[in-house]
Amino acid sequence: MKETCETKTRKEKDSMGEVEVAESAYWGAQTQRSLEHFKIGSKSMPKDLIIAFGILKKAAAKANLELKLLDEEKARLIVRAANEIIEEKLMNHFPLSVFQTGSGTQTNMNVNEVIANRAIEEAGGVRGSKNPIHPNDHVNMSQSSNDTFPTAMHIAAVMAVKKSLLPALESLQKSLQKKEREFAHIIKIGRTHLMDAVPITLGQEFSGYIAQLKFAEEAIVNSLTGLYPLALGGTAVGTGINAHPRFASIATEEIAKETKEPFRSAENKFAALSSHDPFIVAGAALKTLASALMKIANDIRWMGSGPRAGLNELLLPENEPGSSIMPGKVNPTQCEALTMAACQVYGNELSISMAASQGNFELNVYKPLIIHNYLEALYLLSDAIRSFEKHLIEGLKANIKTMEGYLERSLMLVTALSPKIGYDKAAQIAHTAHHDGLSLKEAALKTGYLTEKEFEQWVRPEAMLGPAEEKR
Amino acid sequence: MKETCETKTRKEKDSMGEVEVAESAYWGAQTQRSLEHFKIGSKSMPKDLIIAFGILKKAAAKANLELKLLDEEKARLIVRAANEIIEEKLMNHFPLSVFQTGSGTQTNMNVNEVIANRAIEEAGGVRGSKNPIHPNDHVNMSQSSNDTFPTAMHIAAVMAVKKSLLPALESLQKSLQKKEREFAHIIKIGRTHLMDAVPITLGQEFSGYIAQLKFAEEAIVNSLTGLYPLALGGTAVGTGINAHPRFASIATEEIAKETKEPFRSAENKFAALSSHDPFIVAGAALKTLASALMKIANDIRWMGSGPRAGLNELLLPENEPGSSIMPGKVNPTQCEALTMAACQVYGNELSISMAASQGNFELNVYKPLIIHNYLEALYLLSDAIRSFEKHLIEGLKANIKTMEGYLERSLMLVTALSPKIGYDKAAQIAHTAHHDGLSLKEAALKTGYLTEKEFEQWVRPEAMLGPAEEKR
Amino acid sequence: MKETCETKTRKEKDSMGEVEVAESAYWGAQTQRSLEHFKIGSKSMPKDLIIAFGILKKAAAKANLELKLLDEEKARLIVRAANEIIEEKLMNHFPLSVFQTGSGTQTNMNVNEVIANRAIEEAGGVRGSKNPIHPNDHVNMSQSSNDTFPTAMHIAAVMAVKKSLLPALESLQKSLQKKEREFAHIIKIGRTHLMDAVPITLGQEFSGYIAQLKFAEEAIVNSLTGLYPLALGGTAVGTGINAHPRFASIATEEIAKETKEPFRSAENKFAALSSHDPFIVAGAALKTLASALMKIANDIRWMGSGPRAGLNELLLPENEPGSSIMPGKVNPTQCEALTMAACQVYGNELSISMAASQGNFELNVYKPLIIHNYLEALYLLSDAIRSFEKHLIEGLKANIKTMEGYLERSLMLVTALSPKIGYDKAAQIAHTAHHDGLSLKEAALKTGYLTEKEFEQWVRPEAMLGPAEEKR
Amino acid sequence: MKETCETKTRKEKDSMGEVEVAESAYWGAQTQRSLEHFKIGSKSMPKDLIIAFGILKKAAAKANLELKLLDEEKARLIVRAANEIIEEKLMNHFPLSVFQTGSGTQTNMNVNEVIANRAIEEAGGVRGSKNPIHPNDHVNMSQSSNDTFPTAMHIAAVMAVKKSLLPALESLQKSLQKKEREFAHIIKIGRTHLMDAVPITLGQEFSGYIAQLKFAEEAIVNSLTGLYPLALGGTAVGTGINAHPRFASIATEEIAKETKEPFRSAENKFAALSSHDPFIVAGAALKTLASALMKIANDIRWMGSGPRAGLNELLLPENEPGSSIMPGKVNPTQCEALTMAACQVYGNELSISMAASQGNFELNVYKPLIIHNYLEALYLLSDAIRSFEKHLIEGLKANIKTMEGYLERSLMLVTALSPKIGYDKAAQIAHTAHHDGLSLKEAALKTGYLTEKEFEQWVRPEAMLGPAEEKR
Repeated sequence: MKETCETKTRKEKDSMGEVEVAESAYWGAQTQRSLEHFKIGSKSMPKDLIIAFGILKKAAAKANLELKLLDEEKARLIVRAANEIIEEKLMNHFPLSVFQTGSGTQTNMNVNEVIANRAIEEAGGVRGSKNPIHPNDHVNMSQSSNDTFPTAMHIAAVMAVKKSLLPALESLQKSLQKKEREFAHIIKIGRTHLMDAVPITLGQEFSGYIAQLKFAEEAIVNSLTGLYPLALGGTAVGTGINAHPRFASIATEEIAKETKEPFRSAENKFAALSSHDPFIVAGAALKTLASALMKIANDIRWMGSGPRAGLNELLLPENEPGSSIMPGKVNPTQCEALTMAACQVYGNELSISMAASQGNFELNVYKPLIIHNYLEALYLLSDAIRSFEKHLIEGLKANIKTMEGYLERSLMLVTALSPKIGYDKAAQIAHTAHHDGLSLKEAALKTGYLTEKEFEQWVRPEAMLGPAEEKR
Repeated sequence: MKETCETKTRKEKDSMGEVEVAESAYWGAQTQRSLEHFKIGSKSMPKDLIIAFGILKKAAAKANLELKLLDEEKARLIVRAANEIIEEKLMNHFPLSVFQTGSGTQTNMNVNEVIANRAIEEAGGVRGSKNPIHPNDHVNMSQSSNDTFPTAMHIAAVMAVKKSLLPALESLQKSLQKKEREFAHIIKIGRTHLMDAVPITLGQEFSGYIAQLKFAEEAIVNSLTGLYPLALGGTAVGTGINAHPRFASIATEEIAKETKEPFRSAENKFAALSSHDPFIVAGAALKTLASALMKIANDIRWMGSGPRAGLNELLLPENEPGSSIMPGKVNPTQCEALTMAACQVYGNELSISMAASQGNFELNVYKPLIIHNYLEALYLLSDAIRSFEKHLIEGLKANIKTMEGYLERSLMLVTALSPKIGYDKAAQIAHTAHHDGLSLKEAALKTGYLTEKEFEQWVRPEAMLGPAEEKR
Repeated sequence: MKETCETKTRKEKDSMGEVEVAESAYWGAQTQRSLEHFKIGSKSMPKDLIIAFGILKKAAAKANLELKLLDEEKARLIVRAANEIIEEKLMNHFPLSVFQTGSGTQTNMNVNEVIANRAIEEAGGVRGSKNPIHPNDHVNMSQSSNDTFPTAMHIAAVMAVKKSLLPALESLQKSLQKKEREFAHIIKIGRTHLMDAVPITLGQEFSGYIAQLKFAEEAIVNSLTGLYPLALGGTAVGTGINAHPRFASIATEEIAKETKEPFRSAENKFAALSSHDPFIVAGAALKTLASALMKIANDIRWMGSGPRAGLNELLLPENEPGSSIMPGKVNPTQCEALTMAACQVYGNELSISMAASQGNFELNVYKPLIIHNYLEALYLLSDAIRSFEKHLIEGLKANIKTMEGYLERSLMLVTALSPKIGYDKAAQIAHTAHHDGLSLKEAALKTGYLTEKEFEQWVRPEAMLGPAEEKR
Repeated sequence: MKETCETKTRKEKDSMGEVEVAESAYWGAQTQRSLEHFKIGSKSMPKDLIIAFGILKKAAAKANLELKLLDEEKARLIVRAANEIIEEKLMNHFPLSVFQTGSGTQTNMNVNEVIANRAIEEAGGVRGSKNPIHPNDHVNMSQSSNDTFPTAMHIAAVMAVKKSLLPALESLQKSLQKKEREFAHIIKIGRTHLMDAVPITLGQEFSGYIAQLKFAEEAIVNSLTGLYPLALGGTAVGTGINAHPRFASIATEEIAKETKEPFRSAENKFAALSSHDPFIVAGAALKTLASALMKIANDIRWMGSGPRAGLNELLLPENEPGSSIMPGKVNPTQCEALTMAACQVYGNELSISMAASQGNFELNVYKPLIIHNYLEALYLLSDAIRSFEKHLIEGLKANIKTMEGYLERSLMLVTALSPKIGYDKAAQIAHTAHHDGLSLKEAALKTGYLTEKEFEQWVRPEAMLGPAEEKR
């Protein structure tokens, strides 16, 4: 948490009385109280959430202006300060911990106070005077922490998905598609249960990875459906007390305009304050991506294992010396960073979903925890994906020679014989080959179930890569 | 696990040799081997999965017939036996444990063997003879366990959602809507952070529960999107080896016809075999429902707490004596069963999502575990919801007198004064009332910020239940 | 759930009135109410818990007799019936679901009712008459569900650890020790990050597995420390109301005598009723074992991968045909069953630990869920371990030839050169070998950093299997 | 992550070639590579881990000196630089991300490089020259990342438990004990299933919290048993290659001396490198504490609920204005921060335990993730506990009047009549009182089961707070 070391202070006041605040800080009494009462952990409120609050406060001021609840000058001053938040110019003035009140009230007030003081300053007033802009009466007009915080959560989550995660995910898919094409004609032995199975192309394997990522992407995009409805307008308990009937729709429309995202006013504001189930769906979508990445990274590190006592089918970029004791060792480090990130996301998702179940009556008081974990997981995935793409996928090469060797020696090509001679005889050939250490062909001929010519005609890996029409 | 105690046996044979099987069993050698090798746990393969396999085997036989790979008589015999499985007539013949091979091969073979022997019997043949129907060559024609098992998983999951969970969930929503209407005009004090807040109607509170359930329902329905694409036709590794190019589409269409659900052939069969990410999304949707139920059940048991030292706002049906030692005690037992079910579902979901991340190369070998946990969670929720609806919601009554008392004494009605006299003065009134033990009105008048007439006009709970247009 | 289909009934009565109960059932009105109100899921209360209740009720009767609160005849009758429960003779009379009231009151009453009716019958009385034995006044004397249920949970858990899990776990360790000795002199290439590393013996690898299992065993045994203190004597809320001051110690001592386990009276009964944190520790100990088994099973299936396109270092018993489509395929099915069991246990543990956090005031009402998940995980592990030992470890063989080949070709033997020529030069040799496709020796000589004689003397796998004293 | 913006650089070299490094940085080529390849997330390696590495490197240098593998001057230089790390003087030179290689090799090398360059500087040499101190050959002598990183994990974890968590936890227990004594004679109505139950003192309730915390503390202390054995001496794969046979014991003894903790050399180094199961136990111990805190914080916020429409039994310190819209509202914010922290810890624990299960062969490559999550959870708990103690528990007051009112009106005092008149008659009295809205006494007299005198004598809350000897 960013704390100030300076000694010069001014007095700020809230409904509980006076508090000393660092002279340079825009925040007021309530932020200062929170700073002192919640020295917990090292995580401060996510930047994205603060920006989302800037968007929200701007939209609220515009709506209040339109509804004639706020005069033009006051609205202009609030919008101006909110814009500075959106432009990340005031980021040092949001020092509060994630672990504060579970409604995030203190961060809502932090935003209200910073906007008020910044606006007062602009208007030539005295910081802390609440004149001409009062943090509650003007900046927070028609709002409560209980509806603004979840609104900011939704905005922050959607924007982070759009600006960070999806671009990273799509970029990775493109790089994998390149590899899919590059590997399209490399035939290798497939593996099921880790055991040799029938042939597949390396490109087909990579197509599976892309399909997994595409599914995860769809799950992530679908999860936004639950985040577009906004709580704003519900105020304290969902009824909308102290808000004008048209406030919700006007303010939400402003948010949609500002973000260019189809945010809309939530149909049921009671649920919007007291439940964060949409974040269970959204968190699970991130976990789905984590699961896919775990599979992909594991496959690639296994295929790259060796170089001499492993599968050795892929050659990974050699980025760093891998060992402090074993000279010349190179390791699949990007895969490891990615699988660690995946495991972290599983933890984040659990924290989110457990927290979401713990609402009472009109409020769920685990809001800061939920958005923190969601954004942490999201950025971790974005970063790890970018890193994995750039430092691993782009430089990945196939070791064709090894794959050819495996293919040649494999016994599971026998599968192609099943439709010809039946499963039982085919199995007998495979067993013979395995236990006598023969090649499949040698074993096939030994059993007498087919001729050499038949074997050559029927057992062709390149014909096993897709469904086949020929009659049995 | 159902095991036979009888002593009379016959010999069955598979590619590894002969095995003794109980005379009365339709299963064959591979099922018997699994029975002996996997005496693990008490859970056998879910009935829904076996039925789904019946549907699949029937569809496959029809497709093979259409493709002229299977003659009419053979197809008829297979379809007939498959129908008996669908009609749950052969359920005693599927004794295998969930904890077997991770591909579910042994259960696929169990189905193949039971159908083959049942068909052989019907054709007048000798059980175990594989004549005229061979479990692999005919029943399993164009298939692998690796594509049939995930196909059956998807069918079973979709059908269970449609036949069991959604009806239960919709029924609960209807009962809650009835209560919402019944409670529409009961004004009570809202609670945020568990602390007294501004007024709300009991009906509004219940509308929030319905909104949560509706969101969960949508999440569940949306999650089916990932389950409609079927792996069938991918056979062993996703390439479709040993399947006719048109097999996947014909067989899948048959499944869609039989189930009246829009199943379709998965675009990418490699992912369909090696990943079960769609079950992460589907499992998370169940968890979303569990989270909503946890909130609802907790709220209701809290509102029903007392009767004399609790909130006592709701009167719950008195179903059973609640205590073996405290005479006359009645407890919110349905709420407790429901929250226990919710906690169980969180566990099921973790098992699913952890398992889904553990695929390697062409196969994920946690298939039986995943479908077991999904269906267990689903039926638990269905049952608990039904029980909760019938034994709690239907008989739930509001304790209006208590709620009126709370409302009268509450201090948070002061909120309505904020737009009139500003947040700071309003706060002063509330503090005065709280610390001096006054009513809000007494405190308001004491501060001199408003007249009695103004108080009466501005502080009206019934006017605080929604946004208000009046000018400030 | 076991329900009766019979039509003949008798009337049973509790404090809420009369209920029809199947004539043949020993249970009474409260059990019947629960049966009707909780048709949830397929899991009935674990047998071990019922037996534990038998032990408890017997001990309580003896204590009440000693304290002269119960006369000899009544005590004898109760003890006699309790003994029948302990001997599993009445198991059909405990039909209730896990998902019932969260205190397990209904199961406590089920036990009270069955004992009362069985005792009445023995005394020549009329079932349901509560004469001469009343389920509450006599069988439940000095007790509450709130202290008996957690007491039975602790007894059941400890007994299951001792009778089922530890023997299975120790047996597996013995089988692995046998393998450790068998494999003691087989040198192979070690792998870190999946990449070739310095040599190790196969026996050393297995010693690591045994060490993991030993650690898990210790964690399990240590976790019993939290289960030995019993809640009995705390009655309804922990104060011990309606119990004699000496009841707790006498009854607990009886339990210790009956079970031969060092159970003792919990110091703080309030925590013993309202928290089940000891089950978090106990559940985590099972998860520790699951984690170890996951690692072991994964290693073994990887080392057994192939046979021709995998690592192929171990030869696993060929228990069943592995594929319905690929003839002759054999898979590491026991490993898969074991890793699935491990994933299940992770889910069970989450349900336990989430439930344990949800207590309120004097009671945690997730008791049945917690003991159900604990025992389910425990038996799953016991069974899966037994199966893994018998059907995999016992028949496991090393493929020495493959391992020798890997060792010969490996580059990481270069590590032994570091102390001689420094890390940087050693790295250069390894890089040269890798990129030029040379053997390590060829590369070493090419660089000129050492002589052939030096190479032969310094690079000896058999000298790399432990710390070495020689000077650098 | 701390990155440098300066432009002046120097060349550093490792076995892969030259890299540009900021002139002011002590780190070398490998750290720089990692910085560039792992721009993932915002978490850098925990400070405690770096300090632990300082302790380790110092101990290793001393051991190497004693074994005459390192000359005195080199040892002195290394020890000197290591001391600066221990004293946190070089903390800016450890910029690497948690999400790097899963062995933590890059952080081990970061430490090696910083020590080497700092030592070189001290010796008057040129940074990056590796002369007279080479990061691998001298600082890392007798070590591998694979044994040093887990060793540092164990040291860091134990020290953080001892220096931060246990003091915080013990301090909270002391504050609660003070409250326990303060509240010892306040009789209140107990609650089970949230429903009114028999009486208890507020002090007894608090004794339950202390017992829970004590149990958690014991679990945490017990979990250290698994952390005292150190991997050091196992080097690359557990065999101890390139380490002197006495290195492990000497170095470990030095660590024990430096830390004053009973660290010892792990018996089985193979498990020590490839498994981190001890962190499952340690993580679960933190979760046990989280569970206890969840219960305690929930109880307190519920007892503090109101002030007029809640339980209102406790008066919590009024630390901040609770609402931006509801003037005068005060919320249990410390409870909320604490329960959010608890939920976070559940997530951390899952990440740890999932990661611990994912080892392969000789190494688990989730090391940085595991220690990061462990320490994050630990510090979060420490901070949240301190905050909760200071800002909530210390100023907590009982609202005796409310509690007396509840007690008077309660019906469950009827329990005391059970031993006198039997459960069934007592139940009848309670039902009568409840349904007719009578006091218990009124109902008792109405039924005629006892006289007023008997009632007065038998129904005394102050006599219900513990077991009672009187005859029935």
